[in-house]
Amino acid sequence: MRPLLTDFRATRPRHEVSQVRLLAWLVDAHVEAETARAELDGAARAAFASRMAAAVKHCACPPAQIGTRGVVIGDIGAADWDANLIYDLRRHPHGQGSGARTRLFAEEVDAYFTTAYADDPVAPHDLIHVTCTGYISPSGAQKLVSRRGWGGSTRVTHAYQMGCYAALPAVRIAAGFRASASQLEHQADIVHTELCSLHLDPTDHRIEQLVVQSLFADGLIRYSMVNDDGRSGLRLLALHERILHDSSHAMAWMVADWGMQMVLGRDVPERVASSLRAFVIELFQRAGLPIERLADSMLAVHPGGPRILDRVRDVLELDEGQLRTSREVLFDHGNMSSATLPHIWMRLVDDARVPRGTLIPSLAFGPGLTVCGGLFEKT
Amino acid sequence: MRPLLTDFRATRPRHEVSQVRLLAWLVDAHVEAETARAELDGAARAAFASRMAAAVKHCACPPAQIGTRGVVIGDIGAADWDANLIYDLRRHPHGQGSGARTRLFAEEVDAYFTTAYADDPVAPHDLIHVTCTGYISPSGAQKLVSRRGWGGSTRVTHAYQMGCYAALPAVRIAAGFRASASQLEHQADIVHTELCSLHLDPTDHRIEQLVVQSLFADGLIRYSMVNDDGRSGLRLLALHERILHDSSHAMAWMVADWGMQMVLGRDVPERVASSLRAFVIELFQRAGLPIERLADSMLAVHPGGPRILDRVRDVLELDEGQLRTSREVLFDHGNMSSATLPHIWMRLVDDARVPRGTLIPSLAFGPGLTVCGGLFEKT
Repeated sequence: MRPLLTDFRATRPRHEVSQVRLLAWLVDAHVEAETARAELDGAARAAFASRMAAAVKHCACPPAQIGTRGVVIGDIGAADWDANLIYDLRRHPHGQGSGARTRLFAEEVDAYFTTAYADDPVAPHDLIHVTCTGYISPSGAQKLVSRRGWGGSTRVTHAYQMGCYAALPAVRIAAGFRASASQLEHQADIVHTELCSLHLDPTDHRIEQLVVQSLFADGLIRYSMVNDDGRSGLRLLALHERILHDSSHAMAWMVADWGMQMVLGRDVPERVASSLRAFVIELFQRAGLPIERLADSMLAVHPGGPRILDRVRDVLELDEGQLRTSREVLFDHGNMSSATLPHIWMRLVDDARVPRGTLIPSLAFGPGLTVCGGLFEKT
Repeated sequence: MRPLLTDFRATRPRHEVSQVRLLAWLVDAHVEAETARAELDGAARAAFASRMAAAVKHCACPPAQIGTRGVVIGDIGAADWDANLIYDLRRHPHGQGSGARTRLFAEEVDAYFTTAYADDPVAPHDLIHVTCTGYISPSGAQKLVSRRGWGGSTRVTHAYQMGCYAALPAVRIAAGFRASASQLEHQADIVHTELCSLHLDPTDHRIEQLVVQSLFADGLIRYSMVNDDGRSGLRLLALHERILHDSSHAMAWMVADWGMQMVLGRDVPERVASSLRAFVIELFQRAGLPIERLADSMLAVHPGGPRILDRVRDVLELDEGQLRTSREVLFDHGNMSSATLPHIWMRLVDDARVPRGTLIPSLAFGPGLTVCGGLFEKT
């Protein structure tokens, strides 16, 4: 029996903030940070605020593309700078250091694992924890297993630092565990905790950073890989991935002093798009399916931003409707890094308009540049 | 055919420093950091130096247990504080921030991957990069694949933030990839780059930190998982792991402001030891072998420090000779985090005194507390 992804359960982060408010807050945060850092007087502050508002208006992802974003901390979207946990920008223009951000990540993720698994009577055989936004061991996954006394039956694996595409390596790891498992009824849970909102640096005013800060949000979701026993879910037909030649500098993600830092080249959508047609042909070949089936597929494409969806649509000659779900998830949540693709999968499974038997080609991108793909069938 | 670990190739870090010199340097580093931080005068500095020397003498791993440690940067062991890359302690008493340490990690790891793979004409199907001491994407593994044009044939997986035991999850991941691979002749390479020396904070004078700083070293090693075709190596018979109940607080490892921070409880060897006998019995059962075979095995035990080896020896009723290789690797290298167990494996494979057919029970420990085990047979 083939592996099946099923039982998707997302948790909304505590705070949900409209993109309109978030973009206004972004301007305020940069102004507050620059005022503190450079000790601006009133006039200089006003001039800087006006420049920053223009820059954000010019380059940020607009509210027509992202409606709301979820964030775990009240700092984001609020204006009481001195009360903030991470972004107390008057005292710390960059925000708090990496240690404080990691500790907050640990608290939030522990709380999430506790509630997300509160009603699970049976332990999974494997628990794969996916994140690129907080590194601390024992992890929330390890603590859950220790607390629940599951240590004898559940193995924890960290699939960390693989960026926005990490759902697909996680599925690949889970499929491998299943293939080499001794149990007939193997269950591997995959849990994403992406707290992107912990990694802003409001002293970095570069356009590239404003783009990033206008896109990312927090995402918490779990799902399981089980035997395909007729349940509702996504049957795994094929996986494929490729690191593009000489594209290492186009995107980066690293631990820095004030949380993690991103590099995002303007040409990422172009570089990805140029290789995509051949990539998707190979993905279908691996599943033994003709590429013509792409035409009646529903796609799950990681919406890094609106532009990447446009480029994927054009280069694969898709109808806008085939990307509908990907755009909706971007609109309702923003870019939740690796948690985004699973949110799209969940919606496609739940969507009565998407009939059983529909093929779901799934694509995600990240540092490398790495292009990851999976081909699924809705059951 | 069973999976075989083979072709172990370790690279010595650029600098090799005797433990005698390293411990003297450790005292000097803490004195220099405290002098800068607290603006000590000559008398206060002398008093602090004498206290610190006594503390290090009391708690550090002695030169009888660790002879030398390898480190990638010249800072360690040298006394020209102003010339140091990370530990320029007069200007930065904690050493440089996490960003600088990550960038240096990237440089060293890129250089290592380039030379370690300079003579490989054929790309592995999977490249699993293991580390808990530097998080940056694209990683050295991704950059190698991109540079060599291996992107169409080699998949990169990051097995990060799993601490000292990570070689065994990496072997588990590789075995899964092999079990689900379409290729008949699947090759998964596992590469460890542990640069522990980048994560000292000489302003933290707690005994626990002095213990840690007296143990850890840098380790660089690669090996492959292939089909067991009669080559010399370690045939995988069984894997087992367990997260101990209510032991989450005993050990921790997290991203902080000045590199990564460790928590190491005094009772870790006791906690691990108490569960170990049952654990090893289950490991042998999983391989279908009687526990009596333990008596004529050679063990590969992660030498977190000398005490854990003593406890393992006592609780498993081993001869000192069965732990010989583990102690030798500790003596020659120090604790290289996840790279340590592979160094022991390499030595056991190369050691003509260890006959083919010898069982190699392998044990490693880390945050969770997680106890990991593998049972191998030398071929």
